[in-house]
Amino acid sequence: MARGKFITFEGCEGVGKSTQVNMLKDYLKKTNQKAMFLREPGGNLLSEKIRKIILDPSNSEMTPLCEAMLYSSARAQLMGQVIIPALENEQLVVCDRFIDSTMAYQGFARDLGVKTITALNETVCGNYMPDITIFLDLPPDEAFKRKGGRDEGDRMELQSLDFHKKVYEGYKKAVDMYPDRIISISPRGNKYDTHNAIIRNLQVRGIIK
Amino acid sequence: MARGKFITFEGCEGVGKSTQVNMLKDYLKKTNQKAMFLREPGGNLLSEKIRKIILDPSNSEMTPLCEAMLYSSARAQLMGQVIIPALENEQLVVCDRFIDSTMAYQGFARDLGVKTITALNETVCGNYMPDITIFLDLPPDEAFKRKGGRDEGDRMELQSLDFHKKVYEGYKKAVDMYPDRIISISPRGNKYDTHNAIIRNLQVRGIIK
Repeated sequence: MARGKFITFEGCEGVGKSTQVNMLKDYLKKTNQKAMFLREPGGNLLSEKIRKIILDPSNSEMTPLCEAMLYSSARAQLMGQVIIPALENEQLVVCDRFIDSTMAYQGFARDLGVKTITALNETVCGNYMPDITIFLDLPPDEAFKRKGGRDEGDRMELQSLDFHKKVYEGYKKAVDMYPDRIISISPRGNKYDTHNAIIRNLQVRGIIK
Repeated sequence: MARGKFITFEGCEGVGKSTQVNMLKDYLKKTNQKAMFLREPGGNLLSEKIRKIILDPSNSEMTPLCEAMLYSSARAQLMGQVIIPALENEQLVVCDRFIDSTMAYQGFARDLGVKTITALNETVCGNYMPDITIFLDLPPDEAFKRKGGRDEGDRMELQSLDFHKKVYEGYKKAVDMYPDRIISISPRGNKYDTHNAIIRNLQVRGIIK
């Protein structure tokens, strides 16, 4: 059975992920290629309710494993309700952050480990793993240096370089685990160079035209 | 390092599980053996909030996988916040329903399958699997016949014998998977015989005195 393609974007904060997702969106629009753009946890009421529990400051006793499982619950709902039906309907789906964020943030930065997160991610995805994942590969110190020229950074970015270094380490581990799926692209050049590299990589694999 | 023992009770509806848990509680009290009794999802605020989402009728779009993961999230919190600290503190912990309920209800009755639920259950438990699980082994048709003499059965029990047959099938599968951990005890005799069989099984394995 034909099935739509599934693209995810990953990377540390400040690497220009949203910019590249938007440039891909514009490119697909200009070339008349229909696509569904999602951003986790977005797009459905139930996942938003779960997200509210995760972010509620009064739930300060939440364990890292409970947190990872709640993110996975919200993702399972997004998969079942939105992504899988779209893929079965031969749609192209693009998601800003997905399972590799859980590996990087919960698996590494929160120390839950590769085995636990792999089990959760594979359970959530089943037979619907992303076809390709664009990892914008820039270490957090470089990303923060670039951000230094901006007006402001958010509190988390400014306070916890160690946390973000662990996140980056987690992403590199994910790249090693899934070399066929995850494509590392450096966003060090200007955004048009990065955009063109992404388009070429997607074209060469037959994901987009 | 010494660690407390962890007992769980499982079985279909109407098999006398609560009765047996209470009789064990009385026995331990009379013999001066301290124990912590829990009933899922109970005992902590966050798990109750998660439970509320699971049971909220307005969340009718919830997928079976999201449901299983939310139960697992609540259980992960109960483990991290209550059960693991108690076991590390050498306490005896008794829990009415635990991971095998998820295998029976979500894995079989909701058709998510053994592989998915095993991954979730092992992720939640880590190195803290129950030491022993008492499965009160009575097929749902027999249990419902016994219930027939009562004033009323709840709507779910009366409406869906097929569902409960699948739950029972799931429990039997769990018994096959974990023959060292799960002890099947028939509750067909009177409740004192069943109680004595449970006590003997716990004693012979050095779980209680």
